[in-house]
Amino acid sequence: MSNTISSNARRHVLKGTVAAMAMAGLASWTKLGFAADAKPLPGYADWKIPGDIIVHSNNTLETKRSAYGTSVITPNDQLFVRNNLPPPDAEILKDRDAWVVEIDGVAKPAKLTLAELKTMGLETTAMVLQCSGNGRGFFPHKPSGTPWKVGAAGCVVWSGVPVRALVQAHGGVKAGAKYMTGTGGEKLPDGLDPLSVIVERSVSADAMEDALLAWEMNGEPISLAHGGPLRLIVPGFTGVNNIKYIKRLAFTEQETKAKIMSHGYRITPIGGTSGPDLPSVQQMSIKSWINAPLPEDGAIKAGRVQIHGVAFGGTHAVKGVEVSTDGGKTWTAAKFVGPDLGKYAWRQFVLEADLKPGEYQLASRATDTSGESQPEARVENKSGYNNNSWLDHSIKVSVA
Amino acid sequence: MSNTISSNARRHVLKGTVAAMAMAGLASWTKLGFAADAKPLPGYADWKIPGDIIVHSNNTLETKRSAYGTSVITPNDQLFVRNNLPPPDAEILKDRDAWVVEIDGVAKPAKLTLAELKTMGLETTAMVLQCSGNGRGFFPHKPSGTPWKVGAAGCVVWSGVPVRALVQAHGGVKAGAKYMTGTGGEKLPDGLDPLSVIVERSVSADAMEDALLAWEMNGEPISLAHGGPLRLIVPGFTGVNNIKYIKRLAFTEQETKAKIMSHGYRITPIGGTSGPDLPSVQQMSIKSWINAPLPEDGAIKAGRVQIHGVAFGGTHAVKGVEVSTDGGKTWTAAKFVGPDLGKYAWRQFVLEADLKPGEYQLASRATDTSGESQPEARVENKSGYNNNSWLDHSIKVSVA
Repeated sequence: MSNTISSNARRHVLKGTVAAMAMAGLASWTKLGFAADAKPLPGYADWKIPGDIIVHSNNTLETKRSAYGTSVITPNDQLFVRNNLPPPDAEILKDRDAWVVEIDGVAKPAKLTLAELKTMGLETTAMVLQCSGNGRGFFPHKPSGTPWKVGAAGCVVWSGVPVRALVQAHGGVKAGAKYMTGTGGEKLPDGLDPLSVIVERSVSADAMEDALLAWEMNGEPISLAHGGPLRLIVPGFTGVNNIKYIKRLAFTEQETKAKIMSHGYRITPIGGTSGPDLPSVQQMSIKSWINAPLPEDGAIKAGRVQIHGVAFGGTHAVKGVEVSTDGGKTWTAAKFVGPDLGKYAWRQFVLEADLKPGEYQLASRATDTSGESQPEARVENKSGYNNNSWLDHSIKVSVA
Repeated sequence: MSNTISSNARRHVLKGTVAAMAMAGLASWTKLGFAADAKPLPGYADWKIPGDIIVHSNNTLETKRSAYGTSVITPNDQLFVRNNLPPPDAEILKDRDAWVVEIDGVAKPAKLTLAELKTMGLETTAMVLQCSGNGRGFFPHKPSGTPWKVGAAGCVVWSGVPVRALVQAHGGVKAGAKYMTGTGGEKLPDGLDPLSVIVERSVSADAMEDALLAWEMNGEPISLAHGGPLRLIVPGFTGVNNIKYIKRLAFTEQETKAKIMSHGYRITPIGGTSGPDLPSVQQMSIKSWINAPLPEDGAIKAGRVQIHGVAFGGTHAVKGVEVSTDGGKTWTAAKFVGPDLGKYAWRQFVLEADLKPGEYQLASRATDTSGESQPEARVENKSGYNNNSWLDHSIKVSVA
């Protein structure tokens, strides 16, 4: 394990700002942004950049707010990880093309290898991948679960076969099917009711229109950490609906009875009990946040400042973003920068501001093409899902 | 060095297809795509994926054609490297924000730190970075220089300050300036005339409109291998015009007298002598190639095949791509897939074809928005620059 850490550190050193320190023998974990008491990256994700990641647990790794760049795409080695179960054995990547996925709830059900999928179509989609609980760390009632702030999200390019092409090749969806249900290939713990632990989620069958069975992520075969060799990608839906190691894709009349669907990821009143009648966490809501300047950068030099961040609208494109430097009293339209990768990707925004010495509260508020804007207040819920409050995501900075 | 290789190998193993082999102790250099006699990656680029790279020399690393994915962006750890001089000491990355660049040939010349540049504007541009000699390996007269085939190119997202914003902030370009001249910060060998070795190039001053001084590449601070902490980005122009470690940007009445400009990168007749009167290698030409299927994949299974590749037009967007399976006798329009990242990026194309057993010659031919199409024949020249022949880039595959 120590060898693993040092290899990552070396990689980071050579690419990063601390190269010369390291060359001069001055590197230390703290200087690498890797606090002495920080948890190490788990083995399956030890190729991530340690200084860019907050390790909450072996199954929950967060991107630091300060690590987000301005290049639209989040690199693989900075992207967050959230696993509901430990990842399968790396053995499943031995022969990627031999991976089998079952297609059911279509006129002609089939089992297909990844090699066969690759002959059936090709699409590439840029999409924000965001954990349902991103922003949970801002809820004052301290919900159980990982206290993510902004870093359980990234903008990723996926390549794979369109689900609609698969469905078409297999005679279409069976009459009466209302849901698209994906089943993950994680090994289930012995001695438990499988439905109590299996990662199986249902989304509206309509979501198949833009969904992929993807084998590539940001130009590389999907890693074990991110669901390789094959992952269901449902653009605009929160992370849990994008099933890793997918082994079955079925069009079903009913939602799965798996507990992760019936009780997990439901918008439940604080103090209440979760259950299938409560709203399920599915499509993402309009959201944005500022990535620079940040309080951890220390006092900002007075004068021109480029305030920048990211904005995304779930299943709707972002129409505009406003930025406030006074905690939301006044707002100014920011401008978009960089390429538009489609409605499921995030847009970068920037506001050039001339700031005099003083204290500022920086906030951003995005609006999507359906007219929805970020609210000031989060929607309170037991588990801390779907936080898109602009106030919660605002930051206080000093200008000197 | 061996430790360096093993850390990369480990990283590749965990992300790649051979994970299980490695876990079972079966990994070998050849299985990692790293032939026993292959040269190791040089230290400044030892974080690249060894199995995805052909090491021609310490200064010339090529992406394998089989390594290109279908996610539009070329990841940093797969991207080619071509240095005209060895990179500067890594010390220059110790304090990136302290890097100084001189701006000259404007009304108010200045020296600016990278920290100051970051306050002056922000733009993000996706661009094909391609070595002038990419495709040299197809010239039958075997020009001196690296025999690149397709792998001295990648599509990269850059972030930095627009040069036009800098120019505006410094009173505009001086009257009479026709060129934008960038100077690299490489350490020059002692005892030689600096002009004979310095990396200094001039492009038309108009190119400043979309040029950047960039500090970020694909979401991460620019590595030493790729010109960090600061690189001049001139979208649509070949790699050599995108000056690494830039220390001076000047608007000049004349082209630089540096040898790399006056004699290097000139389209010279075979057997002739290079010189400033010959055409300089600047804007890229319309070009495309197929990345799959490839001969090295072995015999392809008869039936539906997804023939895919990339196409780009230099300073013009790609309008369309045709694909031939019979060596150019007949052509079929391919379709674009994936996001359009702007006119300087490449587009992915795909043609779905039903192939019966037999031998095929796969070719692609792109057309740009100015009406230019790839020619069948390369333009012969001494140093093997600007090869965009569709025939040279065609491949022969077997279907069984």
